This record gives sequence, structure tokens and C-alpha cells, in this order.
Amino acid sequence: MLKILLDCFGGDRSPQANIEGALAALKQFGDLHLILTGDESAIKNCLQGASYDAGRLEIVHAPEVIGCDEQPINAIRLKKESSMMKAVRMLRDDDSISAMVSIGSTGALVAAALTRIGRVKGVIRPAFCPILPTMDGGKVGICDSGANVEVTPEMLRQFGIMSSLYMQHVYGVEKPRIALLNVGKEAEKGDEIHQKAYNLLSETSEINFVGNMESRNLLSGSYDVVVADGFSGNVLVKTTEGTALELLKKLKKDIYSRTVYKLGALLMKRMFMEEKEFMNYQNYGGSVLLGTGKTVVKGHGSSKATAVAKCIEQAYLMERSALSAKIEETILKYEHYEY
Amino acid sequence: MLKILLDCFGGDRSPQANIEGALAALKQFGDLHLILTGDESAIKNCLQGASYDAGRLEIVHAPEVIGCDEQPINAIRLKKESSMMKAVRMLRDDDSISAMVSIGSTGALVAAALTRIGRVKGVIRPAFCPILPTMDGGKVGICDSGANVEVTPEMLRQFGIMSSLYMQHVYGVEKPRIALLNVGKEAEKGDEIHQKAYNLLSETSEINFVGNMESRNLLSGSYDVVVADGFSGNVLVKTTEGTALELLKKLKKDIYSRTVYKLGALLMKRMFMEEKEFMNYQNYGGSVLLGTGKTVVKGHGSSKATAVAKCIEQAYLMERSALSAKIEETILKYEHYEY
Repeated sequence: MLKILLDCFGGDRSPQANIEGALAALKQFGDLHLILTGDESAIKNCLQGASYDAGRLEIVHAPEVIGCDEQPINAIRLKKESSMMKAVRMLRDDDSISAMVSIGSTGALVAAALTRIGRVKGVIRPAFCPILPTMDGGKVGICDSGANVEVTPEMLRQFGIMSSLYMQHVYGVEKPRIALLNVGKEAEKGDEIHQKAYNLLSETSEINFVGNMESRNLLSGSYDVVVADGFSGNVLVKTTEGTALELLKKLKKDIYSRTVYKLGALLMKRMFMEEKEFMNYQNYGGSVLLGTGKTVVKGHGSSKATAVAKCIEQAYLMERSALSAKIEETILKYEHYEY
Repeated sequence: MLKILLDCFGGDRSPQANIEGALAALKQFGDLHLILTGDESAIKNCLQGASYDAGRLEIVHAPEVIGCDEQPINAIRLKKESSMMKAVRMLRDDDSISAMVSIGSTGALVAAALTRIGRVKGVIRPAFCPILPTMDGGKVGICDSGANVEVTPEMLRQFGIMSSLYMQHVYGVEKPRIALLNVGKEAEKGDEIHQKAYNLLSETSEINFVGNMESRNLLSGSYDVVVADGFSGNVLVKTTEGTALELLKKLKKDIYSRTVYKLGALLMKRMFMEEKEFMNYQNYGGSVLLGTGKTVVKGHGSSKATAVAKCIEQAYLMERSALSAKIEETILKYEHYEY
């Protein structure tokens, strides 16, 4: 049995979406045991009428909720009885529990993970690695997408190692093509940190480093992971999502501007729905935090049930593939590097 | 008469597109005088058969061309007889010439502008400010989009001042809304440089600073300029262009996958063409370099004639509005800040 904690509060559609996601995940994996944290009566209300294997679902009461606009450090210190912090403490203290999933405040979760859960041996700083769909039907991971706005070259190398192992063992990508986000393709592009990172990544034989990537090529399907400092990685992910969303919105508005367009769109209805699904980040799960002592997955605040279930699946697969041990093994080979 | 230099080589469609753009600009502005640099016989070939006011068009022979993959510093040192460097020298030495336009190597142009043309008094470093279309039919400038991969808070403040004046005087935007690109809306987001820049921008009374912007909102129409370090600004612009392009490509491919979609698209043909035009950066001119001693405009390497004409128009309007003098006046108010 694999035990995973699910923080049931803090998202736009919580706790309903969280609990529906939990039930879907329980159906998907017969050896999954879920522990839901949050207001017990609210959770029980949501569970009413649902059929599930009660032996694999546990509720741990936690009356408080950390809001998205709360100052992270204060929130994790003061709201000890929140659904998130209760899950974090249990993850830290209970050796039988492998992982946790939350769709609550990103800042609080990162702060809690760093201060309470700790890191895999040798890892300088954990990093987020969300997944975006590429235009050829594939996937691309971005690591880091915002956990570390300041980085060192050695951190960027570690992001490359961790995300390469992640794509390999959780998504089954053989020899993932790892690129470094930069302002141009040439090795000498960018600031000193990126220039040094380029060299470090080049000499890391465990990964398939393919050089710098310009951001306009993110969705081309030529890369499996893009290594980035958390600042520009964050810009990369949010710009992609924002541009896609704004474009679809514009298309929709323009279609409604003339009857003949509406007619045309009617014929293409299924296609447009597929495009919308394709762009829908709900289908791609959450951002896993790579390099933490135990697995932590952060879903989007607006996650629906399918997205929550996907996050649980990610946590499940990370544990089943013993990703942390593999990360530690590779990272420690380079521990002699000064940092 | 306003004299502007046009480097006629170095783009994918040079010199043909450059020269067609030049002729269009000459028609547009009756008081414009253009000096074309580049291989004289090639330029004359392109001009053959065209009708234009020969008194306002001059050719200066320059046999060499700087390629896009040449190392900038070497290129500007060694290729003194290139179309770009000849224009740069004339711009520097001839007081009667106001501005230059090039669609050649960005790196070479930036290096040449910095070392040969110099800066407006008080400006720490010039910055690029390209323009993107917003979904409500407006425009948004991004400053800096790549001239400075490393910045200080004071530089970011200057980018805000320069781009605000640019939007105001060249595009007629009253009280441009200036935002700072960051990983979240709150003032304390980002690294120390961005936190300090937030404070400096807030206390700069000459600009209408509206706070941090998350990159997903770039195209929303809520901002007139986004201030950014050149690294993440570059990521912002290229990701937006890349995502839009990849999405349109995907739509096209999906349309061709089924007959009924092709039929629908036929009804929407005009709309799709308009969308494509809307996304086409060719319509939005080039990246002006703000803060250089004389006006320098850099067009996209793949510029067609319309884009070249637009670049010349930008240079023309910058000069006609005496933008440099306005930048100097405002920047010097803050020169007592330590940097």
C-alpha cells in the first residue's frame, strides 16, 4: 500500500474538486491509500453518497485554511492547524507516508517543504517542474518554474539532473533532451550564471544536454525539459499559458462577430473543443517539487477533479519509481563541486 | 528635412525588402531624406524602374555585410566597410543625420551603438523596446527585451522612464501604465533587484507605475509598457511570439485533418487571415533602442518591406518628437541616485 496525503483546502474549487479527484485516484490505483486533511465535516459532506473503498481513505481533521494571499512564512508559522500544515507535519513525521499533494498557496507550500520536509541529500534547492503540451503531441517540462528566483550555475545543473530523471522515470522518456533557457542559442549567451551553467550541463554525462533554447521554440517538440532560473522559468510558463488563453479568447470573440463565422465554427466545433482541451493545463497535472526529502506535488489553484487526480497520479508514479533515490545517487556524483 | 540612414543589408530579405520599405517611407513623409548604405550596384538594381523623389534618396557604397552569426565585437571591429558600420559611423560623425535603421545582426548593432554612438546624458544603458499587440486592439511595449541581460534597480527605473516617454510621444498614449515584470503581483516578489526596482519605480512621479505584472497578463490590455531585465524581457517577447505562431500552425494542421473542418475554415477564411495579420510582428515595426545618443531602430531580421517602412516611421516619429531631449530631462532629475 502506498500512502499519500491530500490537502483538501486552499484551491478555488476546494474541497469538492479535491475529494472527487481523490475518489478517482483511488479507483485508478488499487494499492493507493489516501489521507485527506481539512475540515472533517466538510469533507464528509462531500463524500456523502459516493462509493469508495473506505479502508483506503482516511480523514484527518484540520480546521484552518491557508489563503492564497497570506504571507507564506507567517502562514506556516501561525496556521499550524491548517489542512496544509497538518499534512506537511504528518509527511515529515510518519515514515509510512510517502508523499503529499496540495492545490493551496504555492508560497506557503514551498516554504513549508523547505523548512519542514528538507531536501534529498546533495540537493542545493528543490525546484518546480510543471509540464506543458508541445504542438507535436508531446510534453515538455520546465525546471525551475518559480521556486528559486535566484540561482547558481550548480543549481541549474542539478535542475537538469533532477528533471531528466523525472521525465525518464515518471513519463518514460528515454534520454530526455535537456535544454537551457537562454536569450540565444550560442554557448556564450546570457549572463555569467547561464554561461557557467551551460558548461556544467555540457560536462554532465548522465544527462543528454542539447544546448541553449530560445523561448520561442518551447512548444516545438524539440526538447523534453528546459532548465531555467525560477524567474525566467516562471515567465516562460505563464507567458505560454497566458498567450494561449488570450488567443483562444480572441478567436471566440471574433467568431461571434459575424454570422458566417459562427456557421463556420459550428462545423469546426469538435476541433475547437479539442484545441481547448489541448491547451487546458488541468490535463497535465501539477508542478512536482523535485529534490525534496519526500515527494510534494503542487496543483494549480483552480484545479478541477481531473487535475487533482492527475497530481495524485504524479505523486504515485514518483514514489513507485523511487525517484528520490535516483536523484540522490546522481547528484552525489557531483557533490565535490564547490557550492 | 529629416535625414535617416537605412542599412540595406543583413536581413533575410535584404536588400529588396529594405529598399521597398525605403520607397514607401519616402512617399509617407515628404520631409524625409534617406541615406541607403550597402553595395551600390545591388541597391541600384533594386531601385530600377521605381519612381521616387531622387533628391531625397542617397546611396553610400559599403561592400561588406555583417552576418547574423558573426561574433558582434569582432564584426564591428573588422568589418568597417559593412553597410551597418558605415551607417553607424555616419550617424556618429554627421550632425545633420538624426537616426539609423537596421535589420541586421542585433548583437553587432547593440555593440556598435554602445561603443560608437554613446548614450543620452544620464542614461546608464540603452534598452530595447519592441511593441506587441494586445487582445483589445491596443499595444504594449516591453523594455528591455534583450540589450541588457544583467540590470540594476536604477537601470530598471530608467527603462520605465524612457519607455513611458516613448509610448507617450511616439504612440500618443496619455499617462502610459507602466508595470514591472515579476513572478507575482505583490511588491516583495522576485529577487532583491526587482524588489528595489519596484520601490524606485513607485517613487518616480513622472511615470504612472501600476505595480508588478505577471507574464500571463501581458496581452490583456491592462498595461502600456512592461519594464523587464533584458533576460526575462527577452523570454517574455519570444515566448509570446512563439506560442502564437505554434498555435496558429497547429490550428492550420488540424483544419486540414478533416474535410468538414476545411469547409468551416472556408467560411472563416477572412477571419483567419485577420488573425494572422494581427499576430504578424511585421505590422508592429522594430525594436527601438531607447537612450542612445542618436536614434537607432532595429527591425526583425525577417522584415518585409512593410516592416522596414514601419521602422523608418518609428525613427522619424522619435526624432520629430525630440524624444532624446525629453528622456535626458527626466533622467537627469534622478541622477543624484547612486549607481
